[in-house]
Amino acid sequence: MTKDTLTKDTLTELRDLTRAFAAERDWQQFHTPKNLAMALSVEVAELAEHFQWLHTGAAEELDERKREGIRHEMADVLLYLVQLADATGVDLRAAALEKLRLNGEKYPAAVVRGDARKYDEY
Amino acid sequence: MTKDTLTKDTLTELRDLTRAFAAERDWQQFHTPKNLAMALSVEVAELAEHFQWLHTGAAEELDERKREGIRHEMADVLLYLVQLADATGVDLRAAALEKLRLNGEKYPAAVVRGDARKYDEY
Amino acid sequence: MTKDTLTKDTLTELRDLTRAFAAERDWQQFHTPKNLAMALSVEVAELAEHFQWLHTGAAEELDERKREGIRHEMADVLLYLVQLADATGVDLRAAALEKLRLNGEKYPAAVVRGDARKYDEY
Amino acid sequence: MTKDTLTKDTLTELRDLTRAFAAERDWQQFHTPKNLAMALSVEVAELAEHFQWLHTGAAEELDERKREGIRHEMADVLLYLVQLADATGVDLRAAALEKLRLNGEKYPAAVVRGDARKYDEY
Repeated sequence: MTKDTLTKDTLTELRDLTRAFAAERDWQQFHTPKNLAMALSVEVAELAEHFQWLHTGAAEELDERKREGIRHEMADVLLYLVQLADATGVDLRAAALEKLRLNGEKYPAAVVRGDARKYDEY
Repeated sequence: MTKDTLTKDTLTELRDLTRAFAAERDWQQFHTPKNLAMALSVEVAELAEHFQWLHTGAAEELDERKREGIRHEMADVLLYLVQLADATGVDLRAAALEKLRLNGEKYPAAVVRGDARKYDEY
Repeated sequence: MTKDTLTKDTLTELRDLTRAFAAERDWQQFHTPKNLAMALSVEVAELAEHFQWLHTGAAEELDERKREGIRHEMADVLLYLVQLADATGVDLRAAALEKLRLNGEKYPAAVVRGDARKYDEY
Repeated sequence: MTKDTLTKDTLTELRDLTRAFAAERDWQQFHTPKNLAMALSVEVAELAEHFQWLHTGAAEELDERKREGIRHEMADVLLYLVQLADATGVDLRAAALEKLRLNGEKYPAAVVRGDARKYDEY
């Protein structure tokens, strides 16, 4: 890894790498926000598939093959999410910090603490 | 934002913030990998919902209300992905870089360039 | 319900009713197979959302409000599936019987009986 | 197909066949409502995947291989939906008719006719 890479925030780094990847293949034409959202939901389902017949997905239920599959699918989810954010002009870090603040107001710790019922209304 | 926050990589920052958020609410008990994967897929669908009746989701099709909804749903997707990675011990940056390298080998630019048919076999 | 309705197979009945529903609203223009597939996946996620923080979703975990939500989302899933089958010319009953036969060959009862590991490779 | 099968409604027929299929394999233990909902969402994503890089999924965009894939995935969606309805005691036909009636009240034809904006608020 170059020094330059190391000093970039990961989300910026992945945005630049996926931009280059798509450009080299002339794939930007397929990357409409709608198509990227659809691709993202497919990757998430492939990720969920690894967990569907497990009890909780805890470490002891995952062998090496499954662990690798999960890692690869999470990577695909992140890569499509970064591309969708890029295509729609969303700053993922700012959006996540804003949403955490909103969630904090919506679910005050003192009110919802350990409460599955309230959590369930999420 | 404190100086400390600014020097952390976003993915690390969000991991720390979501850990604290769940701990304050005693919600870790609900956050099994399986449940987080399911929650992630629900958030992705809420994101996709914004695009389902649009042509491509290009900027001119998105009004302010829709733009905000999309931003919030992308935030939720990232927040659950970060929590799932934390719960399964996956280094998201390393996984994404590894997957990009694998995709590069699987779809050499010279072979798949601008080819929807090949892209479709993806 | 008219006598005519009662003598139709449910899948045919729902196909006819959804056709009329869309035609009355001039909504066929939005109902491309791609859009219907996307709408279907959104409805399925809304259905899954009801189960995401439950242990197994068994009857004792479902109150009346949740039970109604689940019923409505299942209905939406079926209605979009019927419309997608109509839009792509698929005979759902024939497809389901064919798939059951293929699954029976792929997972012979004698081999996979009660075997979570094999089931997991599904 | 026996005469008996022919006189059953398809949804009842598929419920009986999937019950027998799972029982023969001792797979009912895996078929909690939560797991079935998750499996359903995975199958829907596999269906959506066939459409993700297409323009609209119209017949001329689908070759024989794709057509078969779509048919098989739709079958899987229906089979899991039928099993989930069975596991939660939902009468799919009654639920679909009820939901169509509710949708009719929510979206009166005279008001929403051909209106993408209103449809979009769906």
